[in-house]
Amino acid sequence: MSLTEYTELMLPAIEAELQRQVARLDQKETRLFHQMLTYHMGWTGEGAGPEVTGKRVRPLLVLLVMASCMSNWLHAVPAAIAIELIHNFSLVHDDIQDNSDKRRGRTTVWKKWNMAQAINVGDALFVISNQAILDLAGNFPGDTVIRIVRVIQDACLDLTRGQYLDMVYENREDISVQDYWKMIECKTAALISACAQVGGILGSRDDETIEQYCLFGRDLGLAFQVQDDLLGIWGDEALTGKSAASDLVDGKNSLPILFGINQRGEFAKRWSLSPVLPDEVADIAQILVHEGAQEYTERAAERLTNQALATLERINPKNDAGKALVELTKKLLNRES
Amino acid sequence: MSLTEYTELMLPAIEAELQRQVARLDQKETRLFHQMLTYHMGWTGEGAGPEVTGKRVRPLLVLLVMASCMSNWLHAVPAAIAIELIHNFSLVHDDIQDNSDKRRGRTTVWKKWNMAQAINVGDALFVISNQAILDLAGNFPGDTVIRIVRVIQDACLDLTRGQYLDMVYENREDISVQDYWKMIECKTAALISACAQVGGILGSRDDETIEQYCLFGRDLGLAFQVQDDLLGIWGDEALTGKSAASDLVDGKNSLPILFGINQRGEFAKRWSLSPVLPDEVADIAQILVHEGAQEYTERAAERLTNQALATLERINPKNDAGKALVELTKKLLNRES
Repeated sequence: MSLTEYTELMLPAIEAELQRQVARLDQKETRLFHQMLTYHMGWTGEGAGPEVTGKRVRPLLVLLVMASCMSNWLHAVPAAIAIELIHNFSLVHDDIQDNSDKRRGRTTVWKKWNMAQAINVGDALFVISNQAILDLAGNFPGDTVIRIVRVIQDACLDLTRGQYLDMVYENREDISVQDYWKMIECKTAALISACAQVGGILGSRDDETIEQYCLFGRDLGLAFQVQDDLLGIWGDEALTGKSAASDLVDGKNSLPILFGINQRGEFAKRWSLSPVLPDEVADIAQILVHEGAQEYTERAAERLTNQALATLERINPKNDAGKALVELTKKLLNRES
Repeated sequence: MSLTEYTELMLPAIEAELQRQVARLDQKETRLFHQMLTYHMGWTGEGAGPEVTGKRVRPLLVLLVMASCMSNWLHAVPAAIAIELIHNFSLVHDDIQDNSDKRRGRTTVWKKWNMAQAINVGDALFVISNQAILDLAGNFPGDTVIRIVRVIQDACLDLTRGQYLDMVYENREDISVQDYWKMIECKTAALISACAQVGGILGSRDDETIEQYCLFGRDLGLAFQVQDDLLGIWGDEALTGKSAASDLVDGKNSLPILFGINQRGEFAKRWSLSPVLPDEVADIAQILVHEGAQEYTERAAERLTNQALATLERINPKNDAGKALVELTKKLLNRES
C-alpha cells in the first residue's frame, strides 16, 4: 500500500471518530455550541468540506507509526484523534491571540461568533480530547493509557510554553535564531513528536524503537514548521500578496525573518521602520533572498528532513507503512501549502 | 477533629502540591509565564496571601470525603489539586469572557498582562491539572486513575456547557428559572459533585456510597451557587455599592434576578429599561425583596442544603471527617463571602 492508499483508508476512520467524539455536545440545549465546533473542524457552515479540514497530518502520523510497528492501527484511533483535537483547540485559541480573521480561507470562530464563545470552543475541544483518549482503555492496559496521557499532556504544556514565547517575542528585535528553535521546538515539534512517540508506545514494546520514533517526530515537526515559514514568505499565496497571507505582513517570528533581522542589513533596516504593507511583500521577500535568508531556511528544512529520514532508516520498519512514513516525510518537505 | 482542624491540616498539603505542580513552568525561559500563574493562584504579586487564594473548597471536599470513607486522604491529594487547577483555569478564562477587571480584589490576569497571555495561562492551568492527576497512579491501579479522569473530564465538559448557556442567556429576558437550574447544574454543581464522587471512588469500594456522594456533591454545589447569588445582591459588598460588586450592576443570570424578571412586575420593568447603576442597587434590591425574590432564593438554598445533609445522613460516615462534612455543608450556606 502507498501513502495515498493508507491515507484513503485512515482518513475516513479519523473523521468518523472525531465527529463521534465532538457529538458529545450535540444536545438540545447546546446545539449552537456543537455547531461552533463542527464549523471549526470544517464539517459544517460556509465553505465546509474536506479541503478545509486541514491535512490531519498528526493523526495520520500516529496511525502510520502504529502500522509500521506491525500493530493494528485501528486500536490507536482514540489517541490519533485526541491529538488532532488538541491541535484544533490550540488553533481556535491561536486565532484569537493572533487576531486572525481567517483560517483556511474561512472566517475564524471568534470572528464569526465572538471571543468569549471562541475561548469556550477551544476549551471544549481540549476537554473532548481528554475524554476521547480514555477509549484506548478498551484495547490497552490502564498503565499504557496513563503513559500515553502523560506523553500527550507533556506536549501540551510545551505548546503553552511555545505560545508564551511566541507572544513575548512579538515586536522584539533582539530574538536570535536560537530563540526561534526553542520556540518552535515547543510550539510545533513537541506535539508532532508526541504523535510518533504515541504510535510507538502503542505499537511496540521496544523502548529503543519508541525513543527513535520520538526523535523522528521531533525532527519532522521542526522541518514541518521551517517549511511552513518558507511558504509564509515564498509560497504562492504569500507572494501574490493576498492581504496578510504573508508572514512579512503578519510580522511573524518566522525563521527567514529572524535570520534577516540578525543580518542587520537592508532587511533589518526596513523591518525596524514600520509594518510591511501587502504591496511591498514581493520586494522585501527579494531582499531576504539576497541576504541569504531563503537559502539558510531551505537548508535547515532539508537538514531536518534528512535527519528524520536517517532516524527512520535506523528504526528500519520493514512494511508498507514504514515506506509510507518515508513518503510522508518527503512530501511534507515538498508541499506547497 | 473539627472542620477547622481538618482544614488546618489539609490546606498546607493542598497549597504545597499546587505549587509543586505549577512549578513545571518555573524555568529560565518561562519565568514570567510561571509568574502569571502564581499571581492568579494568589501566591505572588500585589495583594498575594492566604486571604486571596480562594477558599479551596473543592480540594477540601475531595479530601474530607476520602477521609470520611476511612481512607488515607493524603493519597487523594493529586485528584484534589487537579480539580482546584481546573476551577482556576475556568476562572482565568471566565474573567476574560465576563470582561472582569477584578478577582478577589486583585487585578485579573488578562487586565494585568493581556488577553492573549491570559488565554494561555488558563490553558496551562488545565494542562497542569491533566498532568497532576496522573500522580494518583503511585497509589491506585491504572483503571481507577482512568475512572477518576473520566469523572473529572465529564464535569469539565459540563463546565463548558454551562459557560455556553450563561453566555447565550446574557441580555435575554425570556430565561426561566428552569433554564437557570440547567445552567448552574453544569457551571457550578458538576465540578463540586465530581469532587465528592472522586473522594468516594478513591476512598470506598461501594458503588452505592459513591453514588450517594455524587448526589450529595450535586446538591451542595447547587446550594453553593444559590448562596453565591444571594450574596451577589444582598451581601455586604454588593449592597454597599462597590462598583460592579453587585450582580445587579453586572447583569448576571442569577436566581433572584431571573425570579424577578419572571414576576413581570416593577423589577422586570426597571430591568428591561437600562443597565443598573451602582447607586441604584440598594433600591432595586429592595424591590426584589418585595417581589419575593430573596425569600424564594433563600428557601432554595435551604432546601438544597437540607437535601445534601439528608444524603450525608444516609451515607452515615461514622468518623470525625463525616462530621466535618456536615459542618462544611452548613458553613457554606451561612457564609458571608
